[in-house]
Amino acid sequence: MPLVLVIEDSDEDYEALRRFFRQSPVKTQLHRCETGKKALEYLEQCILAKQAYPAKVPSFILLDLNLPGIDGRHVLQIIKEDSRLQYIPVIVLTTSTFDKDINECYRLGANSYLLKAMDVHRFKESMQVLIQYWLNTVTLP
Amino acid sequence: MPLVLVIEDSDEDYEALRRFFRQSPVKTQLHRCETGKKALEYLEQCILAKQAYPAKVPSFILLDLNLPGIDGRHVLQIIKEDSRLQYIPVIVLTTSTFDKDINECYRLGANSYLLKAMDVHRFKESMQVLIQYWLNTVTLP
Repeated sequence: MPLVLVIEDSDEDYEALRRFFRQSPVKTQLHRCETGKKALEYLEQCILAKQAYPAKVPSFILLDLNLPGIDGRHVLQIIKEDSRLQYIPVIVLTTSTFDKDINECYRLGANSYLLKAMDVHRFKESMQVLIQYWLNTVTLP
Repeated sequence: MPLVLVIEDSDEDYEALRRFFRQSPVKTQLHRCETGKKALEYLEQCILAKQAYPAKVPSFILLDLNLPGIDGRHVLQIIKEDSRLQYIPVIVLTTSTFDKDINECYRLGANSYLLKAMDVHRFKESMQVLIQYWLNTVTLP
């Protein structure tokens, strides 16, 4: 079952995501980290255990931008500059509509940038397309 | 209308793509380059004309890997190392199922890697999801 790493500090947003993923016909396992620091520690463990447990490495990462401690932009930069991690797709999932954030994230190597829709139906719809695209259409590393 | 740059040497594959895009409810304009050299020249012109004609810059790029002259992997590397171009999403669209190609493309900064399905219905389906994802779900630069 594909594993998706969700880096998200908001309980409410994570619960919504969990519900959308559970309702999808594509079965997935979510691992949540509430901060960038915890996520980087988790990825470090994944890499160390990769030989023995390759399925523990996330298929892709959903990254919130506004996180306590290490900011999401910085987490993105660290992942994309680390030759052991940079191949993992990172999808930024945020409420920020600032052009500066959008362009900066693509420049840093985000595989895509998605807005958390305010409307729950629209949010669910975009997550369904995301799941369909990343887990049923593209070829992952 | 969003512009998609298609870097594809095969007439047959390009015609199939053109048909799938035309049949989509999301209206797009395709610009085809048959070689990597022509595509890089075209992108250079887009960048030079960006201030006057921002709509001429492609929303995303569909890149075949096996191209005559400059290889698709090299085209990807040039785009992702050029600070004026690197923010444009590049989706590799190929028949290569080699792990080496898949990992190398993600490492070089491909925004995703898609296989050209041999079955025409499956190919059409994956292009419909791709259009829905990139032109109706994500936020582009």
